[in-house]
Amino acid sequence: MYVNEVLLSENNKNSTSNKLFVIKIGGNVIDNPENLKKFLHDFAAIDGHKILIHGGGKIATEISESMGLVPNLIDGRRITDFETLKVVTMVYAGFINKNIVAQLQSYNCNAIGLTGADGNFIKAKKRPVKTIDYGFVGDLDEAAIEPENLANLLNANFTPVFCAITHDGEGQLLNTNADTIASVLAVALSKLYETTLIYCFEKKGVLRDINNEASLINEINPAEFEKLKQENIIHSGMLPKLENAFAAIACGVKEVIIGKSDDLETFKHYKPFGTRLIENL
Amino acid sequence: MYVNEVLLSENNKNSTSNKLFVIKIGGNVIDNPENLKKFLHDFAAIDGHKILIHGGGKIATEISESMGLVPNLIDGRRITDFETLKVVTMVYAGFINKNIVAQLQSYNCNAIGLTGADGNFIKAKKRPVKTIDYGFVGDLDEAAIEPENLANLLNANFTPVFCAITHDGEGQLLNTNADTIASVLAVALSKLYETTLIYCFEKKGVLRDINNEASLINEINPAEFEKLKQENIIHSGMLPKLENAFAAIACGVKEVIIGKSDDLETFKHYKPFGTRLIENL
Repeated sequence: MYVNEVLLSENNKNSTSNKLFVIKIGGNVIDNPENLKKFLHDFAAIDGHKILIHGGGKIATEISESMGLVPNLIDGRRITDFETLKVVTMVYAGFINKNIVAQLQSYNCNAIGLTGADGNFIKAKKRPVKTIDYGFVGDLDEAAIEPENLANLLNANFTPVFCAITHDGEGQLLNTNADTIASVLAVALSKLYETTLIYCFEKKGVLRDINNEASLINEINPAEFEKLKQENIIHSGMLPKLENAFAAIACGVKEVIIGKSDDLETFKHYKPFGTRLIENL
Repeated sequence: MYVNEVLLSENNKNSTSNKLFVIKIGGNVIDNPENLKKFLHDFAAIDGHKILIHGGGKIATEISESMGLVPNLIDGRRITDFETLKVVTMVYAGFINKNIVAQLQSYNCNAIGLTGADGNFIKAKKRPVKTIDYGFVGDLDEAAIEPENLANLLNANFTPVFCAITHDGEGQLLNTNADTIASVLAVALSKLYETTLIYCFEKKGVLRDINNEASLINEINPAEFEKLKQENIIHSGMLPKLENAFAAIACGVKEVIIGKSDDLETFKHYKPFGTRLIENL
């Protein structure tokens, strides 16, 4: 039996009222209707409080193109100008978010689709202009979320579904990174709930050999993370992902799981999936 | 002092906890940013529980056109096909709804933007195909809304903002008439709250002479309504509006006000505005 299997089995015995799962899915799940359907079915089956955060996917690009918009790039960085913000608000907060909510409702999950403007749940600051003006992009700090406010919804047994849009509190919507929203939500809510943060992506989890899914690393603590970095097993794109995950754990999140959306099914039986990141024992 | 001024002054003395205002705005308010801003400012200033329902406006048509969509008309009736549903979901639930929410938040109104799918708040039935297949259009019956469900949000001091989209509970979003949503919400919630339903439109209210805004009728009860119909003072478009309003009153709504969005300002001081429809005394 895995360490996390033991822990999760114990959790299952207790009341689930103080547990919270914050789960983020990216474009790779959104873009494939079959993957999305399976994921939402498995998400709905998880007991207790849960929050879903979703990214955008290719559909925002497709709709922009059908409206004749050309991506605004400065030095290779994507800029959220007025027209881009309009499209992402329509696609993320409208089309994607509400179709996810309707599907979750059909699986008896009482989902409620949100941006950070709704309920003032996530208040961002427009990114300051330094060398590049990113446009209507929001950054989050520790004051972004009042956990008690969101707890009102969770404790009334609603399941919040956030898209990657926040606001500045002055009437302006802001495009905001979905990974960051997930992490900041999990940290803020860990003051009130025993919080597990789950990032779903295209791989089984952290792999020793990127070409071999059987080389999945089941568990990593900060000491092991240092060793894996020195051995160059963790590098490039996975490096900032894990650094952010351990930062969230250092700020109160109980554990972070990085895994494949397909494997969430095993999780509802309180079995381990993906790579579990935990504090040093 | 008007009759409703007396009543509203009395209401003001009591706790507002059991009062609810359900307010519907149409395209004429949405299409004009200055009108909308003033309306939202005045809406935010109303004390107590309130719900906003908004229609679509010209922007849905503009965005459809920019995407190269041609309105699908059968026998002159607009059909909500798959592509139309996609656009209205993007525009109503995304762009319009979230910009309204962000503006209300800037006026310290804790708005939360919703479709009927969110929280399963409004469950519709896809309109049956008779001579015309209207496509993804939802009709509402008395089972559409469980008032206790929405009361969870209201009593947690959130202000729901509904766009004109519902769902069937089986994963399908449905385009639904905003006037009907407002009326069905008001009737359902009148079981729990003393409910005032307000329709904002382009005129001051019901006018004796349609070309003279000074001919506003301040108050109409069902007996007077019959008389006004016989005198042909109320006819054409205003007739079904008032019939629906009196039907809502017969089902438990305390009063229905039909007036101009600009005049909502006077209402926050508990002064009468528009035409007030009430039961026979």
